[in-house]
Amino acid sequence: MNRVIVAPVPPEDGMRAAMARVWEIYDASFAEMQVVLRERLSTHPAFGPLIRDTPVDEAQEAVNRALLRAAMVDWEWEAYWQDTRRQAAGYATAEIPLASWVELVNLFREDMVTRVFAAAAAPDVQELVHAVNRWLDDAIAAFAQAFVSANEGVIASQQQAIRQLSTPVLQLRSGLLILPVVGALDRDRLDQMRALLLEAVRERRARAVVLDVTGVPEIDTVAANQLIGSVDSARMMGA
Amino acid sequence: MNRVIVAPVPPEDGMRAAMARVWEIYDASFAEMQVVLRERLSTHPAFGPLIRDTPVDEAQEAVNRALLRAAMVDWEWEAYWQDTRRQAAGYATAEIPLASWVELVNLFREDMVTRVFAAAAAPDVQELVHAVNRWLDDAIAAFAQAFVSANEGVIASQQQAIRQLSTPVLQLRSGLLILPVVGALDRDRLDQMRALLLEAVRERRARAVVLDVTGVPEIDTVAANQLIGSVDSARMMGA
Repeated sequence: MNRVIVAPVPPEDGMRAAMARVWEIYDASFAEMQVVLRERLSTHPAFGPLIRDTPVDEAQEAVNRALLRAAMVDWEWEAYWQDTRRQAAGYATAEIPLASWVELVNLFREDMVTRVFAAAAAPDVQELVHAVNRWLDDAIAAFAQAFVSANEGVIASQQQAIRQLSTPVLQLRSGLLILPVVGALDRDRLDQMRALLLEAVRERRARAVVLDVTGVPEIDTVAANQLIGSVDSARMMGA
Repeated sequence: MNRVIVAPVPPEDGMRAAMARVWEIYDASFAEMQVVLRERLSTHPAFGPLIRDTPVDEAQEAVNRALLRAAMVDWEWEAYWQDTRRQAAGYATAEIPLASWVELVNLFREDMVTRVFAAAAAPDVQELVHAVNRWLDDAIAAFAQAFVSANEGVIASQQQAIRQLSTPVLQLRSGLLILPVVGALDRDRLDQMRALLLEAVRERRARAVVLDVTGVPEIDTVAANQLIGSVDSARMMGA
């Protein structure tokens, strides 16, 4: 999970005038667009049930709109993306797949582009289309990345749980420990085994430790050396 | 992991003429667009190293182009999306975050829209912009969904591994088994414990089984009943 999360980068300042104009067009037809979108989505397999069960939340809509205005007019993009990420993380465990969210953005994009063409003429309209696309692509990027990162967080904590579960230290009788090792040995597991072993030797005052590696498919020299090192350390602690 | 994967749905037939025209524009400037894109990406933090280390693979490019032509002209979208998904699944474990892929599509989209404006006049250009956006949004949907699904597959198999690791059956001495149960009991784990218990009773000819539930934070009546049911079944098998 070494991935660097690259947040979207705010558009160049050269796009500010076009983006502010896109905001005006959006703001002027906000109510109408909401109705059209809700109507189109009400028969959608993924969004239909959600739309039908969720009444319009005007307070939430006002918050969203203020965030969007701050981004598109005042160029404060980070708060808007942060809110988008927060929503995406919440949706990552819900029933709606990411592909459907992108489809939703496409419906909205088509509506916005149509309104932009109705509101402006060439050559302005081209700049406005770029602004619409930049706005929506950055929103998709923030949303989709947060969606994926929520899953990556689950993967990392599960890995940790598996590593702990697969390295138990059993006490056979007083002073005798057994460490059954099952599965492949990577560096993280070797480090963890060493820590577990020494902790167990100290806490349970072990005199003997059996490292049972019959369950390990193959041991290379690096792993073997590290195992021997762990045994030496245990010996120095009295085992 | 109950999510239904909604593949993109091919565009309405009404978009065929516009999409074929977009293909022509793309095809005519293919070589030029590749150069521009590679140049813009060569300084990108995520794509730069990849671009610099990867020579142009003309055979692969020809395959990609044929798939795209079949989609945009012959309306065979599924093969193109399938290939997109395949690539996405391969990239899901690489260092490039999903947000950067969306950013890449935006660069490409801007270039395509600019070329569309140069090649056509109103009112045609509006239809062409819709076609470009539909093409690229569906591609993002297929790519992002496959990216997420690759992670979901990992999560599901890790869950399975954790469940198995956290339900060991230990043999204390001949005929005596112990099943230490640690952590919350959900329906899947209860079912699995029952199966493990009966299998262990049969294979190891156990006469007595200790179900150690001191490690379970809370047991509701449903779980308790199911545990008792498992014990009854074990009894019928001779334990």
